[in-house]
Amino acid sequence: MEFTVNQVAAMLGGEVNGNGNQKINMLGKIQDAKEGQIAFLSNPKYEQYIYTTLATAVIVKRDFVARKEISATLILVDDPYISFTRLLEEYHKLVSFQKSGVEQPSFMGENSTIGNGYYRGAFSYIGNNVKIGEQVKIYPHAYVGDNVVIGDHCIIHSGVKIYADTKIGNHCVIHSGTVIGSDGFGFAPQSDGSYKTIPQLGTVIIEDHVAIGANTVIDCATLFGDATVVRQGVKLDNLIQIAHNVEIGKNTVIAAQAGISGSTKIGENCMIAGQVGISGHIVIANHTGIGAQAGISKSIKEEGKKLMGSPAYDFSEYYKAYAVFKKLPDIFHRLRAVEDKAKKSENTSLSVD
Amino acid sequence: MEFTVNQVAAMLGGEVNGNGNQKINMLGKIQDAKEGQIAFLSNPKYEQYIYTTLATAVIVKRDFVARKEISATLILVDDPYISFTRLLEEYHKLVSFQKSGVEQPSFMGENSTIGNGYYRGAFSYIGNNVKIGEQVKIYPHAYVGDNVVIGDHCIIHSGVKIYADTKIGNHCVIHSGTVIGSDGFGFAPQSDGSYKTIPQLGTVIIEDHVAIGANTVIDCATLFGDATVVRQGVKLDNLIQIAHNVEIGKNTVIAAQAGISGSTKIGENCMIAGQVGISGHIVIANHTGIGAQAGISKSIKEEGKKLMGSPAYDFSEYYKAYAVFKKLPDIFHRLRAVEDKAKKSENTSLSVD
Amino acid sequence: MEFTVNQVAAMLGGEVNGNGNQKINMLGKIQDAKEGQIAFLSNPKYEQYIYTTLATAVIVKRDFVARKEISATLILVDDPYISFTRLLEEYHKLVSFQKSGVEQPSFMGENSTIGNGYYRGAFSYIGNNVKIGEQVKIYPHAYVGDNVVIGDHCIIHSGVKIYADTKIGNHCVIHSGTVIGSDGFGFAPQSDGSYKTIPQLGTVIIEDHVAIGANTVIDCATLFGDATVVRQGVKLDNLIQIAHNVEIGKNTVIAAQAGISGSTKIGENCMIAGQVGISGHIVIANHTGIGAQAGISKSIKEEGKKLMGSPAYDFSEYYKAYAVFKKLPDIFHRLRAVEDKAKKSENTSLSVD
Repeated sequence: MEFTVNQVAAMLGGEVNGNGNQKINMLGKIQDAKEGQIAFLSNPKYEQYIYTTLATAVIVKRDFVARKEISATLILVDDPYISFTRLLEEYHKLVSFQKSGVEQPSFMGENSTIGNGYYRGAFSYIGNNVKIGEQVKIYPHAYVGDNVVIGDHCIIHSGVKIYADTKIGNHCVIHSGTVIGSDGFGFAPQSDGSYKTIPQLGTVIIEDHVAIGANTVIDCATLFGDATVVRQGVKLDNLIQIAHNVEIGKNTVIAAQAGISGSTKIGENCMIAGQVGISGHIVIANHTGIGAQAGISKSIKEEGKKLMGSPAYDFSEYYKAYAVFKKLPDIFHRLRAVEDKAKKSENTSLSVD
Repeated sequence: MEFTVNQVAAMLGGEVNGNGNQKINMLGKIQDAKEGQIAFLSNPKYEQYIYTTLATAVIVKRDFVARKEISATLILVDDPYISFTRLLEEYHKLVSFQKSGVEQPSFMGENSTIGNGYYRGAFSYIGNNVKIGEQVKIYPHAYVGDNVVIGDHCIIHSGVKIYADTKIGNHCVIHSGTVIGSDGFGFAPQSDGSYKTIPQLGTVIIEDHVAIGANTVIDCATLFGDATVVRQGVKLDNLIQIAHNVEIGKNTVIAAQAGISGSTKIGENCMIAGQVGISGHIVIANHTGIGAQAGISKSIKEEGKKLMGSPAYDFSEYYKAYAVFKKLPDIFHRLRAVEDKAKKSENTSLSVD
Repeated sequence: MEFTVNQVAAMLGGEVNGNGNQKINMLGKIQDAKEGQIAFLSNPKYEQYIYTTLATAVIVKRDFVARKEISATLILVDDPYISFTRLLEEYHKLVSFQKSGVEQPSFMGENSTIGNGYYRGAFSYIGNNVKIGEQVKIYPHAYVGDNVVIGDHCIIHSGVKIYADTKIGNHCVIHSGTVIGSDGFGFAPQSDGSYKTIPQLGTVIIEDHVAIGANTVIDCATLFGDATVVRQGVKLDNLIQIAHNVEIGKNTVIAAQAGISGSTKIGENCMIAGQVGISGHIVIANHTGIGAQAGISKSIKEEGKKLMGSPAYDFSEYYKAYAVFKKLPDIFHRLRAVEDKAKKSENTSLSVD
């Protein structure tokens, strides 16, 4: 991963002022960048650093006028911040997808295929009849069970466990320790107090552009032919529980340690905060916002609501009630005082009568 | 896994009506089953599909009378739903236990034994002096530490980590990413504000017929000779925390993301909902039910209680109080109004006097 | 690991009374110790057992006077309990660090080094340019990404996943399934309702003497050069979420299933109980205590506060309010009664007027 200043400028549609043949291999901050790095200047507050930076190149605004000599090569663009962000993204993509080839020992079962540009880390396991698309990176200790299908441009980080028959779309990233397709939690009570396992025979479907954090769990559906479904663009954080037969709507975002119980359907573009718990067999409307640690026990039918509390209800109503909750000892005291007065006044009235 | 219709009928004690030599390799729903599949008809609402289904065989009630021609072979039984459920269970067992033999590379230390019908997946690790019973399936990337004992008919899924000296009974299933026997969280405060590690030298005992979900953690006991114990028939969901020296009674069921603190004893046949937290060093009576997100801070001595809230108390009392909580802003308003009236009335009384 | 009684006595500064050449290979409790084990007698209540114990040696107080014959060899010390604890710690250290050498297959990339006394378990993975100190134990299925630095005397348990560029100090223990350095949860909303990934390019720094439980997750920082930081002496339990750019102060202790949101700074010597949730971008003062399941939404500026509730505030104020919360149905009833009286008295007053 080494580019010339000219190559970077071409990518950003920028103009080079200085030696464009110099090599860049890293991004840095203008105040502490080193040789071989590229930085940017957007906020005028940082202008002082452009005259002393060791960076090989600095991205500046097209109308930037230097007040002193600058040793770095300049790349002139319309918006240095946006250009740098784009560079960051490209860099991130390059770093994320840089691993390639196969490390040994690794395991690949019968009738399994993987497209071009793959990485199969040491100790990665791919079962039988697995179909994996192009530019997919399977890190060390990842487990991909039999009959799994994975699309293109996915990253399966170290130690991810994907049970048999799971389907994963394109452009998905799954972080370490996450488990997809484990048995749903289904047990039928028996007359002697014990429980009998209800076979969990469904699968999990993860659509395109889904990101899943570390140590999250997504259980498979109960019945044959059914699936727990995570729709396109969903972003799941770490340590989340998604139970069997759940469906999570397009572009919904769920923060760490939240849990969704079985058969619940979450709408599109919802925002679910950390440690939220959602009961089973309910439906959450699109654009619902749920505050941290809230507990949702009933379906939310109206779109765009914001909820808080356990059980949760309207966010601002909850906060108003909670503000009074804090005063409860005082309220109780005042209630008794007013009761005493009422009793006294009653007695007075009685004596008046 | 291919059976003839006759074989399936024999297993179910059913009577065959049609060609019993046809092959079945999959279960399906009557409305979308394909050739080679077996479906069932129980609910009369679905009768229409039996005349068009592509299923090779359909399980029907003994007294079923066809109103049109049916191409599928019929298996006549007393209760089609129960028969199909039994088939599901058999199928599930077959699928779950179908892996066998050893994939390479895998690791097995000195003096370790494993019974007949085993599966040892690639990259599975079995330490020294391990004793594993018959029909045990150790999936890829599972880790079984030194001196561990595992009974018969267990499934240890991919990436399960079992620390040294753990004991696991028969018919247990442990899902991916679960950790058993990690150090209990014990640290002694020192005068300089730092903490000293209290050695965790006990073990974990898991009895028979225990099911454990994915990414759950069960810590070992603190003292030599002591154990964290999970009794027979317990069912644990995903992402659960079981701290050191906890004991979980027979047939207790715990839902995802619940946490039990150190040295607490949970009784038999309890039902603990998701995200519940239970304090350390307490005792929970048999048949206790604990609602989602509840926090239990004191021992529950009476059996059969249902609890809610944090700290938790009687379930229906909690809901009554919570219903009033929602009205707190209004209550506060009304309290002030009645205070005003009382003051006014007091003044009036005073003026009366 | 076998010592003579004389060796143990020398280590404890104790005096031997009996055959000091006998071999000891295990610690035990005086009431059920077996041959080859060493026990202790501190509480006089247990004195009876010293006359019947099968232990090879028993640690007793220097002034202990036997009332009957004792077959065990005695080690006389100032404080038997403290001596035994020291023995436990030594034993634990020996057991923890006893594994050594390399098991095959294991993987070590280019330009990586590991110091003396190492253990590299089968299927452990060490990437490129990794620097690992002395006496470090890397258990099976552990993953150490490129450019990671690990100090001396660390234990990385089975299945731990350490992403590239992470830095870990000396004397750290990390339990199975824990993930360090996964991407922070950062997504920028787009006009079409979808989200764009914000590249997470920072790292994680873990200082010395940090203990981390099982299946915990620590995300990397967002920006280049930034780090999520866990300071010296911090103890983290199982299943904890530490988001990007968080900093956890020296000697702070966090119990299981707690979650800290992005960019929050936790002070030194805080005690955070189980299932606590802490919002992002806030600061928690030193010596703060946070009760189980509490939710912290604002910075805590004053040191030494104890908090409870969600949102949390003063611990004892919360409990006082919660005590009144339980009475809310009764309070509501009484409020209505006093309203009725007030109305009646008002009417009376009116009629008086």
